[in-house]
Amino acid sequence: MRISELSERSGVAVATIKYYLREGLLHPGLTLAPNRADYDDEHVRRLRLIRALIEVGGLSIANVVQTLAAVDDESVSIHDAFGVAQDALSPATPALAPTPTSSNSPTPCTDSQLEVDRWLRRRRWKVRPDAAARTELAETLAALQQFGWGHSASLFDGLADYALEQAGLEVGYLDPRQDRSSLMEQAIIGTVAFEQAYGAIRRLALEHQSYQRFGRRRSVNA
Amino acid sequence: MRISELSERSGVAVATIKYYLREGLLHPGLTLAPNRADYDDEHVRRLRLIRALIEVGGLSIANVVQTLAAVDDESVSIHDAFGVAQDALSPATPALAPTPTSSNSPTPCTDSQLEVDRWLRRRRWKVRPDAAARTELAETLAALQQFGWGHSASLFDGLADYALEQAGLEVGYLDPRQDRSSLMEQAIIGTVAFEQAYGAIRRLALEHQSYQRFGRRRSVNA
Repeated sequence: MRISELSERSGVAVATIKYYLREGLLHPGLTLAPNRADYDDEHVRRLRLIRALIEVGGLSIANVVQTLAAVDDESVSIHDAFGVAQDALSPATPALAPTPTSSNSPTPCTDSQLEVDRWLRRRRWKVRPDAAARTELAETLAALQQFGWGHSASLFDGLADYALEQAGLEVGYLDPRQDRSSLMEQAIIGTVAFEQAYGAIRRLALEHQSYQRFGRRRSVNA
Repeated sequence: MRISELSERSGVAVATIKYYLREGLLHPGLTLAPNRADYDDEHVRRLRLIRALIEVGGLSIANVVQTLAAVDDESVSIHDAFGVAQDALSPATPALAPTPTSSNSPTPCTDSQLEVDRWLRRRRWKVRPDAAARTELAETLAALQQFGWGHSASLFDGLADYALEQAGLEVGYLDPRQDRSSLMEQAIIGTVAFEQAYGAIRRLALEHQSYQRFGRRRSVNA
């Protein structure tokens, strides 16, 4: 199909498709003539995956590239590709905000980093020593400590019990008999989308509980 | 204190502090002379909150401005300010990605939006009809449906039971006897940080479960 039809079928604008081609997110079509390429169902499917990673997961283009490379590289095991996706999901320092660099300031996360590492060892979770989520969790713990939410990583025990159970269900749902790329796609979308879903549901639940505690006098349309 | 001392004490670079002052995130110090202003503990505290929202919550500058305005406006009830923070946390369409605009494409979320609204009514959650998390959840549901994870919002029932219980504990932890701005700060950091913590823990749990299912043959240092 021509790029115009690919745009029709995927709902992604031609200019956006061209941008993804330039950035290497989408593999080129078959060149039929200098200004004419042929695209197929694989392109439609890949565009769907890219849009989901960007729109639902909020991934940057660079992280989408990294994730797709792991999906496509058949020498990367499913387990390792999973790890790449987990790392791609961990937020980097936002580009908008100038980073604070005071030469005298200590590394803020050393203590909480050690605390998180100890906590993971205690739970006997098999995770890479350099998994990005370790640092992310340590930063989060430091912020919670600073604002009076508690002192140790045991604060996370309830969350961890629940997350472990959910993750077991989620990984168990994946059918290893399907082809590798379908499995990887489903695994990655699950990783991204259930995290987002939980965040959204959590915020809705907080609003409801805040209404019960602080807002009863006001009228709210449910 | 001078801006250099404010930088020392908060660990935020002078250039960054000046940027926050220009953007209106930080209220100006007391002007002592044309090029000299005096800052106090309130500024240190506010800088800590701004850094946590940006680094832990991944909020954009615009969303930090919006959240802080709700914190500071005493005419906004605690419950309503909570709602503003929930909305500020819902990811907007990322600026990096050109938006797909095909004139023929249907609005992708109508069905899942209705499904999410029905689901929330069924649960009797008191949330604003225009809460940003509703749309976010609908988009997530659409992606999960598209990649074979299930068909209805009942997919989220387990997450919602757990989120409701957690949110109840979290809101219950807030002491309404403390002053309004401390309460608001703690509430907002809790919202932001526990969401991030759960995301990170979830990814660690997924890695562990993926190791159990797909990675046992490979060696992983725990």
